[in-house]
Amino acid sequence: MGLIGAAIAIAGAAIGAAFGSSKVIAKTIESIARQPEMKSELQTLMYIGVGLVEAIPIMAVVIAFILVFS
Amino acid sequence: MGLIGAAIAIAGAAIGAAFGSSKVIAKTIESIARQPEMKSELQTLMYIGVGLVEAIPIMAVVIAFILVFS
Amino acid sequence: MGLIGAAIAIAGAAIGAAFGSSKVIAKTIESIARQPEMKSELQTLMYIGVGLVEAIPIMAVVIAFILVFS
Amino acid sequence: MGLIGAAIAIAGAAIGAAFGSSKVIAKTIESIARQPEMKSELQTLMYIGVGLVEAIPIMAVVIAFILVFS
Amino acid sequence: MGLIGAAIAIAGAAIGAAFGSSKVIAKTIESIARQPEMKSELQTLMYIGVGLVEAIPIMAVVIAFILVFS
Amino acid sequence: MGLIGAAIAIAGAAIGAAFGSSKVIAKTIESIARQPEMKSELQTLMYIGVGLVEAIPIMAVVIAFILVFS
Amino acid sequence: MGLIGAAIAIAGAAIGAAFGSSKVIAKTIESIARQPEMKSELQTLMYIGVGLVEAIPIMAVVIAFILVFS
Amino acid sequence: MGLIGAAIAIAGAAIGAAFGSSKVIAKTIESIARQPEMKSELQTLMYIGVGLVEAIPIMAVVIAFILVFS
Amino acid sequence: MGLIGAAIAIAGAAIGAAFGSSKVIAKTIESIARQPEMKSELQTLMYIGVGLVEAIPIMAVVIAFILVFS
Amino acid sequence: MGLIGAAIAIAGAAIGAAFGSSKVIAKTIESIARQPEMKSELQTLMYIGVGLVEAIPIMAVVIAFILVFS
Amino acid sequence: MGLIGAAIAIAGAAIGAAFGSSKVIAKTIESIARQPEMKSELQTLMYIGVGLVEAIPIMAVVIAFILVFS
Amino acid sequence: MGLIGAAIAIAGAAIGAAFGSSKVIAKTIESIARQPEMKSELQTLMYIGVGLVEAIPIMAVVIAFILVFS
Amino acid sequence: MGLIGAAIAIAGAAIGAAFGSSKVIAKTIESIARQPEMKSELQTLMYIGVGLVEAIPIMAVVIAFILVFS
Amino acid sequence: MGLIGAAIAIAGAAIGAAFGSSKVIAKTIESIARQPEMKSELQTLMYIGVGLVEAIPIMAVVIAFILVFS
Repeated sequence: MGLIGAAIAIAGAAIGAAFGSSKVIAKTIESIARQPEMKSELQTLMYIGVGLVEAIPIMAVVIAFILVFS
Repeated sequence: MGLIGAAIAIAGAAIGAAFGSSKVIAKTIESIARQPEMKSELQTLMYIGVGLVEAIPIMAVVIAFILVFS
Repeated sequence: MGLIGAAIAIAGAAIGAAFGSSKVIAKTIESIARQPEMKSELQTLMYIGVGLVEAIPIMAVVIAFILVFS
Repeated sequence: MGLIGAAIAIAGAAIGAAFGSSKVIAKTIESIARQPEMKSELQTLMYIGVGLVEAIPIMAVVIAFILVFS
Repeated sequence: MGLIGAAIAIAGAAIGAAFGSSKVIAKTIESIARQPEMKSELQTLMYIGVGLVEAIPIMAVVIAFILVFS
Repeated sequence: MGLIGAAIAIAGAAIGAAFGSSKVIAKTIESIARQPEMKSELQTLMYIGVGLVEAIPIMAVVIAFILVFS
Repeated sequence: MGLIGAAIAIAGAAIGAAFGSSKVIAKTIESIARQPEMKSELQTLMYIGVGLVEAIPIMAVVIAFILVFS
Repeated sequence: MGLIGAAIAIAGAAIGAAFGSSKVIAKTIESIARQPEMKSELQTLMYIGVGLVEAIPIMAVVIAFILVFS
Repeated sequence: MGLIGAAIAIAGAAIGAAFGSSKVIAKTIESIARQPEMKSELQTLMYIGVGLVEAIPIMAVVIAFILVFS
Repeated sequence: MGLIGAAIAIAGAAIGAAFGSSKVIAKTIESIARQPEMKSELQTLMYIGVGLVEAIPIMAVVIAFILVFS
Repeated sequence: MGLIGAAIAIAGAAIGAAFGSSKVIAKTIESIARQPEMKSELQTLMYIGVGLVEAIPIMAVVIAFILVFS
Repeated sequence: MGLIGAAIAIAGAAIGAAFGSSKVIAKTIESIARQPEMKSELQTLMYIGVGLVEAIPIMAVVIAFILVFS
Repeated sequence: MGLIGAAIAIAGAAIGAAFGSSKVIAKTIESIARQPEMKSELQTLMYIGVGLVEAIPIMAVVIAFILVFS
Repeated sequence: MGLIGAAIAIAGAAIGAAFGSSKVIAKTIESIARQPEMKSELQTLMYIGVGLVEAIPIMAVVIAFILVFS
């Protein structure tokens, strides 16, 4: 039962994280292409944003590992 | 039964948090690229916003941990 | 049975709250970026709005905790 | 059986209320940002609107509590 | 069996009522922001509209209560 | 079996009626805001329209009550 | 088995009829608001249209009643 | 088994017919509102069109009645 | 088993045929309203098109009748 | 088991063929209405296109008949 | 078990092939209507394209026949 | 069990490959119709692109055949 | 159990890879048609991009083969 | 049970990673085609972005391998 649980958790984490961070990164690339002079500020913001977006999915990875080995 | 429950809870939390916070951050990056002079105000608002968005998902993480270890 | 129930409740709460509050906050950031002189009014409205949006999901968190410990 | 029922009820209430009230509030913020001189009328309407939207979900919260304790 | 039924009924009622009435109210707020001089007529129409929209969901609340106590 | 059936019937009725009548009412409010001089005709049409839309859902309410008490 | 069947039939009828007739009525209201001089023709067409749309759902209501009482 | 089958058949017929015929009628109303001088041609076409659209759903009604009484 | 099968077949046929033929007819009405001088060509094409669209769903009706009486 | 299989096969074939061929025909009608002088070329292309689209669904009809009579 | 499998395979193949080839053909018809002088090149490309699109669905037809007769 | 598996694999492959390659081909036809002088380059790119898109679905065909004959 | 697993894995891989790589290739074809002078850079980028997109689906193919032969 | 789990995990990872990285790469190609002089900066950002997007799906691949061999 824990193995199916780990699979559901990691699948949700992968879909969520890929959707969320790709949205942030794609918007950053688009904005930098328009305002090249703001590259450093937007890139810094992108790293912070991806970190914030992936905070909960990484929790899900941790829970998935716990479910696998329990 | 609790292990499947933890997986459902953390998967919902990961998808919800990634969707919500990526929406806030992408809109912030887009707005800063248009009005660079408002960078500090919008960035502060973004941190508060991500905190508000992720308040309930973090509750879900807590419940998922309780379900794993119970 | 209560553990699966807690997971469904908290997952619905997380998705709903993240979707709703991110919509309010993203719209606020967009509006402030256009009218910087209205920052304080809109920010106040945003806090009230997020509170109203998250009123029912917090109820769901409470019910999820009751379902976990019952 | 009542515990799963409470979870379904509160999850539906949370998703519905968050979707509905966030739509009303986001539209209010957008309108106030355009017509700042109408702030008080629109804000009053927003409170009434959120109350009307959340009337049925609060019924669902009540039924969820009855289902938990029955 | 009646408890699950009550949950399905009230969840459908909550989602439907929140979706429907939020659509009416958001459109009213948007219209009032454009034509402030029509505020009283549109607001009256909004109250009637929300009442018409929530007529069937309130029936669902009644049936949900009957299902809970039967 | 009849209790689950009543719940499915009333949930479908609530979602359908709320969706349909909110669409009619929102379009009416939008049209009145544009042509205030046509308020009485459009309002009359709205009442007829909501009545036509909710004719079948009210049948569903009747069937749901029959299913509950049979 | 017939009771669940009646519920499925009437729920489908309610959702279909509400969706279809609301679409016809909303389009009629929009068209009348633009061409007020065509009000009588369009209104006649609307009544015929709603009748045509609701012809099959009313069949479903009949079958649902047969399923309830068989 | 035949009763559930009748319900599925009539529900599909109701949703399909309502969706299809409402699309044809709404487009006709919109077109007549723009070209009032073509009212008779378009109205004739609408009746033929609704007949063609509802040909298969009426077959489904027939099969549903056969399934109910077999 | 054949009765459920007939219901699935006829429901798919009804939804598919209604969707497809309504799309063809609505596009024809729209085109005739713009080019009234092409009415006869487009109407001929519409009859052929509806015949081609409904060729496979009529096969499904045949199979559904075979499934009912086998 | 073969009867349910025939129903799934023919339902998929009906939905797919109706969706695909209606798309081709609607686009052809739209194009002919714009360039009436190209009617014969486009109509020829439409017949070939509908044939190509319905090649695989007709295979599905064949398999459905085999499943019914096996 | 193989009969249900054949039905799933052929239904997926029919939906996929109809969706894909109708997209290619509709785009070709639209393009030829705009550039009539390119008719032969685009038509050749369309035949190749439909062949490429239907390569995998025809594999699915083969597998469906194998599943039926095994 | 392997027969259902083969059906799921080949159905996924057919839908995916038809969706992907039709997207590439439709975009190529559209681009060639606009820039006829680039026909050879775009056509070459299209063949490579369809090959890349269908690489994984062909793997799925292979696995489906292995599942059928194992 | 491993055979169904292999089918789910390869179906997900086929749909994901076809969706992702077709998006990249279609965008490349569109861009090359607009800026023919950038053909070599964009084409190089396309090969790298398709490789990156298909990295994880190829992992899924590997796991599907392991599941088939284990 | 672990084999189905591995399949769910790797399928979610493949769909998520392909969706996310294709979004980033397509946006990059589009931006480079508009601003060719920013090719190196955007390409660097793309590599970082794809790495960030695929971080969680690669975790899912690892868990899928663990589930296969456990």
